[in-house]
Amino acid sequence: MPDPLDPRCPVARTLDIIGERWSFLILRDLVLHGPRKFSDFQTSLGAISPNTLSARLKTLEDGGVIERRLYDEHPPRAEYLLTPKGAALRPVLRALRAWGEQHAPRRAPTRAAS
Amino acid sequence: MPDPLDPRCPVARTLDIIGERWSFLILRDLVLHGPRKFSDFQTSLGAISPNTLSARLKTLEDGGVIERRLYDEHPPRAEYLLTPKGAALRPVLRALRAWGEQHAPRRAPTRAAS
Repeated sequence: MPDPLDPRCPVARTLDIIGERWSFLILRDLVLHGPRKFSDFQTSLGAISPNTLSARLKTLEDGGVIERRLYDEHPPRAEYLLTPKGAALRPVLRALRAWGEQHAPRRAPTRAAS
Repeated sequence: MPDPLDPRCPVARTLDIIGERWSFLILRDLVLHGPRKFSDFQTSLGAISPNTLSARLKTLEDGGVIERRLYDEHPPRAEYLLTPKGAALRPVLRALRAWGEQHAPRRAPTRAAS
């Protein structure tokens, strides 16, 4: 059976690291806001379960695109940030944003800006 | 609870249509090979189940990025192709490929080219 993630295809290899919706949104947050705590992701990604968020962060960490850094020791507190390899994904996010701005309509009327 | 697919964020709106690994790989095939039949996707995406493939094609069709076209009537045979809106996703695929070529190593030694 052919390998759906053909090791010869760089698109498939990339998706092996970042190929899920939540992973893209985690990366979007890090690109937009810089280092983020676990709870920050929970706030911005509302519907994600803690287990799923942990799993996605782990995959991104294992793939070398984000790193986990302790910024306090008593009590231990960690934040996540993009590595240089992760920062190199900005063109992917930019391309997704550009396409969405042009081709993916807003799904609901927004409330009046205040 | 915040909407994880914030309608105001074009990245999230784009991922609502193409935000799964299989969807990206379907689009990759269409960009690389042009119109494809259901069975062509099954061959190239080996591990995908028919139900999942149907569901992804449906989502992409509903999102207006691919269309299904009958190319024969006796018996009826259909193929899938990119719409102009789908073709506009090429920069996303290009960005994924470029990143993969530079940052996502091949996962297994390839057999000697014959």
